[in-house]
Amino acid sequence: MHKFLKLTLASALLGCGAMGVVGNLMTKEAKAVEIITHWVPHEVYGQIGEPDNNGKVFFSGLGAKYMGYPKHENPPAYPGKYSKFWRTLPAYRYYIPDYMYNRDEVRPSNPIKGTFQLEQCIACHSVMTPGIVRDYKKSAHSRAEPSPTGCDTCHGNNHQKLTMPSSKACGTSECHETQYSEQGQGGIGSHASCSSFAQVECAWSIERPPGDTAGCTFCHTSPEERCSTCHQRHQFDPKVARKSEQCKTCHWGKDHRDWEAYDIGLHGTVYQINKWDPKQFDWTKKLADADYVGPTCQYCHMRGGHHNVQRFGTVYTSMGMSMADRGAPIWKEKRDRWASVCDDCHSPRFARENLQAMDEAVKDAGLKYRETFQVAADLVKDGVADPMPKDLCPDWSGQHVWSLKIGAYHDDPAFGGKAGESGEFRMSNVSDIERLCFESVGYFQTYIFKGMAHGSWNDATYNDGSFGMDRWLVNIKQDATQARRLAALEKKVGITWVPESYWKTGEWLDHLTGPYIVKNHPGKTIFDLCPDPGWLDTHHAPAEEVEYINRKIKELGWATPEHGGHH
Amino acid sequence: MHKFLKLTLASALLGCGAMGVVGNLMTKEAKAVEIITHWVPHEVYGQIGEPDNNGKVFFSGLGAKYMGYPKHENPPAYPGKYSKFWRTLPAYRYYIPDYMYNRDEVRPSNPIKGTFQLEQCIACHSVMTPGIVRDYKKSAHSRAEPSPTGCDTCHGNNHQKLTMPSSKACGTSECHETQYSEQGQGGIGSHASCSSFAQVECAWSIERPPGDTAGCTFCHTSPEERCSTCHQRHQFDPKVARKSEQCKTCHWGKDHRDWEAYDIGLHGTVYQINKWDPKQFDWTKKLADADYVGPTCQYCHMRGGHHNVQRFGTVYTSMGMSMADRGAPIWKEKRDRWASVCDDCHSPRFARENLQAMDEAVKDAGLKYRETFQVAADLVKDGVADPMPKDLCPDWSGQHVWSLKIGAYHDDPAFGGKAGESGEFRMSNVSDIERLCFESVGYFQTYIFKGMAHGSWNDATYNDGSFGMDRWLVNIKQDATQARRLAALEKKVGITWVPESYWKTGEWLDHLTGPYIVKNHPGKTIFDLCPDPGWLDTHHAPAEEVEYINRKIKELGWATPEHGGHH
Amino acid sequence: MHKFLKLTLASALLGCGAMGVVGNLMTKEAKAVEIITHWVPHEVYGQIGEPDNNGKVFFSGLGAKYMGYPKHENPPAYPGKYSKFWRTLPAYRYYIPDYMYNRDEVRPSNPIKGTFQLEQCIACHSVMTPGIVRDYKKSAHSRAEPSPTGCDTCHGNNHQKLTMPSSKACGTSECHETQYSEQGQGGIGSHASCSSFAQVECAWSIERPPGDTAGCTFCHTSPEERCSTCHQRHQFDPKVARKSEQCKTCHWGKDHRDWEAYDIGLHGTVYQINKWDPKQFDWTKKLADADYVGPTCQYCHMRGGHHNVQRFGTVYTSMGMSMADRGAPIWKEKRDRWASVCDDCHSPRFARENLQAMDEAVKDAGLKYRETFQVAADLVKDGVADPMPKDLCPDWSGQHVWSLKIGAYHDDPAFGGKAGESGEFRMSNVSDIERLCFESVGYFQTYIFKGMAHGSWNDATYNDGSFGMDRWLVNIKQDATQARRLAALEKKVGITWVPESYWKTGEWLDHLTGPYIVKNHPGKTIFDLCPDPGWLDTHHAPAEEVEYINRKIKELGWATPEHGGHH
Repeated sequence: MHKFLKLTLASALLGCGAMGVVGNLMTKEAKAVEIITHWVPHEVYGQIGEPDNNGKVFFSGLGAKYMGYPKHENPPAYPGKYSKFWRTLPAYRYYIPDYMYNRDEVRPSNPIKGTFQLEQCIACHSVMTPGIVRDYKKSAHSRAEPSPTGCDTCHGNNHQKLTMPSSKACGTSECHETQYSEQGQGGIGSHASCSSFAQVECAWSIERPPGDTAGCTFCHTSPEERCSTCHQRHQFDPKVARKSEQCKTCHWGKDHRDWEAYDIGLHGTVYQINKWDPKQFDWTKKLADADYVGPTCQYCHMRGGHHNVQRFGTVYTSMGMSMADRGAPIWKEKRDRWASVCDDCHSPRFARENLQAMDEAVKDAGLKYRETFQVAADLVKDGVADPMPKDLCPDWSGQHVWSLKIGAYHDDPAFGGKAGESGEFRMSNVSDIERLCFESVGYFQTYIFKGMAHGSWNDATYNDGSFGMDRWLVNIKQDATQARRLAALEKKVGITWVPESYWKTGEWLDHLTGPYIVKNHPGKTIFDLCPDPGWLDTHHAPAEEVEYINRKIKELGWATPEHGGHH
Repeated sequence: MHKFLKLTLASALLGCGAMGVVGNLMTKEAKAVEIITHWVPHEVYGQIGEPDNNGKVFFSGLGAKYMGYPKHENPPAYPGKYSKFWRTLPAYRYYIPDYMYNRDEVRPSNPIKGTFQLEQCIACHSVMTPGIVRDYKKSAHSRAEPSPTGCDTCHGNNHQKLTMPSSKACGTSECHETQYSEQGQGGIGSHASCSSFAQVECAWSIERPPGDTAGCTFCHTSPEERCSTCHQRHQFDPKVARKSEQCKTCHWGKDHRDWEAYDIGLHGTVYQINKWDPKQFDWTKKLADADYVGPTCQYCHMRGGHHNVQRFGTVYTSMGMSMADRGAPIWKEKRDRWASVCDDCHSPRFARENLQAMDEAVKDAGLKYRETFQVAADLVKDGVADPMPKDLCPDWSGQHVWSLKIGAYHDDPAFGGKAGESGEFRMSNVSDIERLCFESVGYFQTYIFKGMAHGSWNDATYNDGSFGMDRWLVNIKQDATQARRLAALEKKVGITWVPESYWKTGEWLDHLTGPYIVKNHPGKTIFDLCPDPGWLDTHHAPAEEVEYINRKIKELGWATPEHGGHH
Repeated sequence: MHKFLKLTLASALLGCGAMGVVGNLMTKEAKAVEIITHWVPHEVYGQIGEPDNNGKVFFSGLGAKYMGYPKHENPPAYPGKYSKFWRTLPAYRYYIPDYMYNRDEVRPSNPIKGTFQLEQCIACHSVMTPGIVRDYKKSAHSRAEPSPTGCDTCHGNNHQKLTMPSSKACGTSECHETQYSEQGQGGIGSHASCSSFAQVECAWSIERPPGDTAGCTFCHTSPEERCSTCHQRHQFDPKVARKSEQCKTCHWGKDHRDWEAYDIGLHGTVYQINKWDPKQFDWTKKLADADYVGPTCQYCHMRGGHHNVQRFGTVYTSMGMSMADRGAPIWKEKRDRWASVCDDCHSPRFARENLQAMDEAVKDAGLKYRETFQVAADLVKDGVADPMPKDLCPDWSGQHVWSLKIGAYHDDPAFGGKAGESGEFRMSNVSDIERLCFESVGYFQTYIFKGMAHGSWNDATYNDGSFGMDRWLVNIKQDATQARRLAALEKKVGITWVPESYWKTGEWLDHLTGPYIVKNHPGKTIFDLCPDPGWLDTHHAPAEEVEYINRKIKELGWATPEHGGHH
């Protein structure tokens, strides 16, 4: 990791020398916080094997520093930190409108000249795009008093300077300020930050051509940048946004398998069976008044209609790949609040014991993952992985750091890079064993977490949950065995195996960012080339979260680190 | 296998020396029955390659001895045979209430004291758990004459001794005795036995920590222990239980892919497209009067509303992993009954020819599986599998039996264990090749069976059906080739490969039951440590099934084995 | 490839010596057309890495010669070319009725004698198959004026000679001629040809037993042979056929993942959330009048109700595995027409930029695939693949051509077969590396194409789209590395590895067509044994397509090849 950033982060957490319990954080937990704030899904490496209830404060969403919408007075222009290397497509403009559509220097040309009022818009677009007009006429916008919220309200009047409304445009004080502001209270991984964070501060979008990662952009921009992802345009009917499927487009698949967890569980079954019966699901009622026969996504995660979907989160972060000391007093209040969501239909004991079952399942998953990781790490340390990090084409930063090296926990020189630097979970161009590790924790452990969290135990254990981790553990042991047997044979007969060149270069690999940096900026890394502060450097924890952690630390008699300051 | 049990089973089938045709059963078929009654999914190893219609009586669901609810006068307390090693979580109590909730010694504490009547329950719970009360008020229970079936009817009045109703509680003579009794007529693999059987007599739950197998418990307890899995509480509206999705939570995924088979087929399409049109699906009608435009799960499997979902089963057992002599006269009646389910909308020929197509598809799958298995077995026999059974951590029984060794058919000393002992299909900590075999037959062959059985040929062939088996056959040959080439090389250069220790021990492996037994009970196996009869020893075939097989055997002029006796 | 066919195809494209631009086609493009017309999914090998807009005319659906229903005066009897080796099941008769049901020599026997009129049919079948009668009575057929379209209209009166109506039977001039004729305008891969083409001209059905490929038959016969696949019998209510799920049974899974692409995208979400609200989806309106809140499959692909679902296709063919020069002028009109489908609700720019995003994603996928293929090809060329083609059991033609050898592009002697001959993408009995290649392009690249085409970017990138290709690229490099290390070791120590015999023979392999041909027709291939023209030799491009390509070529000033002629 870039040294400047690293020091900044550490000092941000620790303030000016807070000691005692917090001082202990220095050695391990500070790095954990550092990690979670910059490198998303690494924490599992460091998750604690000690018994619960030992009182330690571990990292978690609550400890994360950077959250919510930018608070910096002069925020860097989107797309932020690594924008130099971020490649986009013209169609991205619809998903990141303020950056790619609404600025004069990028606004697409338009053949129609003139300024128009609502009636004129409608007259013409009834022919040009009749579906939009038909939907608009059904909307509350068209019936607003004293005057309709018209096409021009959101898109402007000058047809040469039309705007594509962003969520900011909807969140003005005249319109939907409450919802916009509530959404902005979310932390890392929330709707409020998924675009700026995921698109321009993480390797996965930076390192590859835009056609190859269009799907990342599609979902990771949606809720931060546009209200219309969840509120179907141009009717914007809230009763439609209350249905569970509305969350499905993004919250589905591999490492975001929320929809599957819900749909396959009993909650989803109740929903699917009753959803068109107005006696069981009266969609016209506001969320705050909803008395559904079973929960929707929105009913639990946006309880009462609040637009920060993280309010009732667990202690777990990074989609279940991290693990906090779940029984520690500091988390009790947060965990009780989670359990309280179930109280319409379930006893407190039922909810608590389900949370406990989730704890156990995630703990078991962690055990399996650490066994999995160990096999991979030993292979690299013994120098018998094929390919070794040096044999691959440069990573997104232009270096050869092992993809599973996480500075705070696995700071082994054998893993490449400088002390404290971290690799990056990679989907492409890594050894089979690295990819197996990534999948085990990123696909299966997250699934276990999400399944258990949604009361879908079947989902958590079965298909691609704990049975998937079992399988991947077999895979990695098989892989490592073959690598070791080959290495032993080669040593015995005097062969020095030179890894195949296709790991280093190829028709596809040559299109990645790493080789580009090495070729065009010899001796530099992406961190050298992008020294300006990015989104992560200009965001702070929401007041509510800071208040919680400070209050609990005080209650527990610990010294207080300074949270939220920007250095 | 435990010797006592083995002998018991063999003698139970054969009676006191029945000879002739049945005598021939001794050598092979008796063992088959033994297998199916104790070890679930093994039969495919022994499935017959001979032409159909040769008149042989093979094992199948009909030959299975142990079925339905316990009939022993003094049944062993749940959870039964291997309960010593079964690890549970507190939340399991909601899924196995009679064992884990309703007994005084385990009943959870409750902060509220006093005895209450219905009105009082409602007054308080309208605040505490309003969703439950709202649903109850919509239920037929609340409108029952002469007096409502109230909270107290099912949960009791004493708030310190509340009960969680099991299916037994619903199945009393005053209430739903017929349905409870019908369900109890199911055989192995039925709703009536899936909990007791799967949870405490099979390795998969016994060998692992409870967080890791919570999903097994979730589904495998549901229908045996609780009516509310299929009858949504607290409305318990039968029209809701008639919809296909109600079966989905459990009947889905990998080796239980019924939902997928239905949903992707034309039947499921007709359902999905018409289900909310009351002219096509009138859910208010009883199943016996249903005249749907297309079949639901319940319409075929619970024809007329009968709660034994196995009444219209095929000859196939173990989810299609077994294979009977499908054309043999003994099965004709049963097969004709299967085909008769289609007669509302299809000609008898159509149904029969679809059954025949299923026969062919399963036969082809069996061919592929046997070729798959042979590659794995040869590897073990030649001693070049890596790891060999001895190199793994002890299996659930505390031994090192090869996971694919099935005593009756693959009783090779090279496979480990004593003569007649069987291994156990395992998902974890086996060699890659063993796991490939398990998946090929357990995931893909079952899918082929289920797809064809539901008229979803596409499903059976395509995605993960026969194309999946093709792929796994490539995998296993590739694996075996690499193992053999490595072994040949090592032999040539004089390396004696010592399998890696991670197959034997590790942070995760050390939490399994096998190592625990070896460490804490040296020299013993799980069979030694659990000598008491379990569920399998106290159950008998339903009278209806015994009648069928005895009648057919008589019609065919064969000697009659004594079925159903307990020795 | 059969030499006669090859020459025929080449001369068909090139006419009598057209030179210039078209002359250049001779070397590469002519072969491409040859390939696409006979061997389905190969084109990706030859896709062009040059920049767009270079003006070249590449192969695509438009260049394909053989399309639509047979136009030959004396068409060969279905099932056509390789019928000698095509194995069917009796139940296939319901899916290919004209060939397997309605001819006297194959018509199944019927126990009922006599000729009957509608009332009599109904009287008896109200008891025998009441569901059918109930549905018929709800149909428009039963209310037709002046007299009902009765059972006998479609099935005949003579109960000994009942017919099973094919789509041809529905498409007569008295009934649904327009729809039948429109459907017949589709090209390769369309509803109009999927049965004849896929079942009897492609290896996948010919090489294997019928139980193993029943699913191919189920879908690939459905729309060509039967209207009732999409029009639920016996109500045949068009409003039901307008719902998206109706397409799902076939258009789903692995390499046909249209349903998933739709369902997971925003279009599918709008559909799922609103489909039962008549204000949003009025199913009683004809497609031509539909004003849905969101698109159904039918709304876009059958715009205005036209039954040729390919009318609004892209330039891409073979489910996205091919790639044309997308920016070339010749395709502009076709691409603009594609974009025009979105104009009810989206601006032209939005549609065009989405098409561009698809171009980019497919181009990136092509880069990855070519890198993938290269690793496999080098392995074969270096002779270190295990197994090599010669080590496998004979392919469907009775030869040992490498499955990935496509004559026009990869005509390397090392790949086996004669010059110009092509292998066949195979799912079974190939080396792991060949199967990986097949999956990479056949499962993942097609998914990328389909996801992007449906506005489901998430789908295209994420689950099994570009991330899947990344993973498979790791797999193949890992595989190749192990093969090369083993080969190097064996060479060094003097081992000559003899591939295992299980690649050549086995209980399953011995049931395939290749070994059958070798054993029963020594020295012959399937091409020698089936010299008669098949479906491919008797079909011609629809006039509309021929007109388009000829007109564009003329506009561009190129010499015109003679399309559509049969030599």
